[in-house]
Amino acid sequence: MIAENMKQMVANSSAIRAMFEEGNRLAGIYGKENVYDFSLGNPNVPAPEAVKAAAFSVLEEEEPTVLHGYTTNSGYPEVRERIACHLNAQFGTAFTKENIIMTVGAAGGLNVILKSLLNPGEEVLTFAPYFAEYRAYVNNYGGILTEVSPDTETFQPKLEEFEAKLSPRTKAVLINTPNNPTGVVYSESVIKRLAEILERKQKEFSTTIYLISDEPYRELVYGGTQVPYLTKYYANTIVGYSYSKSLSLPGERIGYLVIPDEVKDSRELIMAAAVATRILGFVNAPTLQQKIVARCVEERTDISYYERNRNTLYDGLTKLGFSCVKPEGAFYLFVKSPVPDEKVFCETAKQYRILMVPGSAFGCGGYVRLAYCVSYETICNALPQFEKLAKEYLTAV
Amino acid sequence: MIAENMKQMVANSSAIRAMFEEGNRLAGIYGKENVYDFSLGNPNVPAPEAVKAAAFSVLEEEEPTVLHGYTTNSGYPEVRERIACHLNAQFGTAFTKENIIMTVGAAGGLNVILKSLLNPGEEVLTFAPYFAEYRAYVNNYGGILTEVSPDTETFQPKLEEFEAKLSPRTKAVLINTPNNPTGVVYSESVIKRLAEILERKQKEFSTTIYLISDEPYRELVYGGTQVPYLTKYYANTIVGYSYSKSLSLPGERIGYLVIPDEVKDSRELIMAAAVATRILGFVNAPTLQQKIVARCVEERTDISYYERNRNTLYDGLTKLGFSCVKPEGAFYLFVKSPVPDEKVFCETAKQYRILMVPGSAFGCGGYVRLAYCVSYETICNALPQFEKLAKEYLTAV
Repeated sequence: MIAENMKQMVANSSAIRAMFEEGNRLAGIYGKENVYDFSLGNPNVPAPEAVKAAAFSVLEEEEPTVLHGYTTNSGYPEVRERIACHLNAQFGTAFTKENIIMTVGAAGGLNVILKSLLNPGEEVLTFAPYFAEYRAYVNNYGGILTEVSPDTETFQPKLEEFEAKLSPRTKAVLINTPNNPTGVVYSESVIKRLAEILERKQKEFSTTIYLISDEPYRELVYGGTQVPYLTKYYANTIVGYSYSKSLSLPGERIGYLVIPDEVKDSRELIMAAAVATRILGFVNAPTLQQKIVARCVEERTDISYYERNRNTLYDGLTKLGFSCVKPEGAFYLFVKSPVPDEKVFCETAKQYRILMVPGSAFGCGGYVRLAYCVSYETICNALPQFEKLAKEYLTAV
Repeated sequence: MIAENMKQMVANSSAIRAMFEEGNRLAGIYGKENVYDFSLGNPNVPAPEAVKAAAFSVLEEEEPTVLHGYTTNSGYPEVRERIACHLNAQFGTAFTKENIIMTVGAAGGLNVILKSLLNPGEEVLTFAPYFAEYRAYVNNYGGILTEVSPDTETFQPKLEEFEAKLSPRTKAVLINTPNNPTGVVYSESVIKRLAEILERKQKEFSTTIYLISDEPYRELVYGGTQVPYLTKYYANTIVGYSYSKSLSLPGERIGYLVIPDEVKDSRELIMAAAVATRILGFVNAPTLQQKIVARCVEERTDISYYERNRNTLYDGLTKLGFSCVKPEGAFYLFVKSPVPDEKVFCETAKQYRILMVPGSAFGCGGYVRLAYCVSYETICNALPQFEKLAKEYLTAV
């Protein structure tokens, strides 16, 4: 009796659940510490101490009916003002609280903006590999997700194919940098060319094409890598942000959308996003967390921990002969499978108690994603297992 | 450039915003304490002290990467287990954690279950007057909301009309008791007849008709009124619950769905609801709040406060000649407008600095909703203003 369009998704979900249960099964047999689970993007670095301190202060200081009460659908004005000021100081932008809409994480924000924008049959373009849920988010509102194929040399966007795939039906382009699953940061020159193409195509088609930038990993970058702030490169840019990774609060569901004044029909779109927040059932972003993040805009999680993990895992795997672009951000390695069907590779890896996600889940078969937001010990102990796995594959190849 | 189906909703939203701004304008001129704003269902009784204590304990005791980390889409198993046990103790049910899905409030839960159930064109029946957002929730998934007209004598469901409107396309029936906007609690005899009709029609059509019970006001009842627990009367019942009112936490967005084993295709539906939670962008209910409510299942807000408000406002208005069913629950009075077009009445009331919501927003013109979740002083000070309003209308009628 469930909805037809949910049946396939429930079947896929069973596959994910099966993997999860396989992890539990292995942990039951060998002990949790002997299972090398790289399948989940759940931060293992705790939230900064300042988050806890902010929670205590807010609970002590704020009047409960205000602290836990409904806010406007867009969130507390003072929280949005604080975030706008912080962005302006960082990026030289000129946002006000009107440009900020607090959301139930980045996933909530993406649903809100897609609901606000999409008419049935309109297209959203994205670059493979991409976060697996994008397709479902777009389909929720009758939209069609079109992929630009991956450049497996660099995992930067393929701009010629992109230009060719833009059409009068393209309502939005959805990008994610630093990227899940590759960890790649799109370079400024790529962003400039992307913006130039979009400007040109908007004129050619006499349409508006929104660029939606999904940025949960903005602060997770290594070695001083700069992540261009996209509203400065292309006027019709909307930013979706989340504190899930920067403050290690993924379960709390707190983030925001930025809809700049420069965006076409900005005022109407801001109102639509507020309405969408309400009618999709979010109503408002969780209020205590709104107040907490406003007090922690300068804080971030300990990135050096992820950086050490990245270095150790990347060095270890490449020494063993595995091939992978060194990520500049996020907490993922996207490793080339030694056999074309990476699902086979994932299955074999399980025999060594290593859990990874097949790249086909991200629109890029032949690769596997390893989330290195795990303990350093897990990485050190996993490497000898990867060595056995490498022997099985890489000597034979 | 916004989505076509959002344009009307943005226009309606502007009307609500205009009312909100009118309130602010009046407060600016006359002072906030001299504006009698009965328009918002935002609890004014603070969360119980136990909520704050639970928040402190949880923050002190729980490991941050677990406390703030992703949970399964359905929520922490131990939280769901605690809620299942609490329901079983209260209602003699036999739920396990598998039957409980934590949601982003009741609004989030309703969206999740409608996404899980509805195919485009399928119908959802509801009884007028009803919460204004139901239509949008159903439309989000291509469904059609069909109203059963109000029985303005009792505001109990009109069951003959209901039976006549059930059809092979009816996928679900959505009810809300204690009711927003009337405060009426559907009686046990009505529930039994409703269940009997549904059983009969399921057989006649060879379909499954789900009964979705939206219960944010379950605990807000006066004078020992009993609210039947619907899973005991009809097998295909799904309950949507929220802590927004029972613990005065509306901004925190925390509630749950109950999908009992007895429900047709229960296992598939539970999985679909978990998937819907993910792909609609909720991902999981806010984690800190999950932990807090699990420690507060026995707690509730101070209902005596609302009860005094109810009595004073009801007695005051009826003495002035206004007509209204005495509510047994929730924190609303649904008052008959002295003129057929209640919007005119609302406009006149503004001249006396009284803000109310027209009943047509709830599918029941000719009435106005007063939310009495305000300070007692507001009610006492508003009554002389209502007296002036009554003189203008009731003597002339």
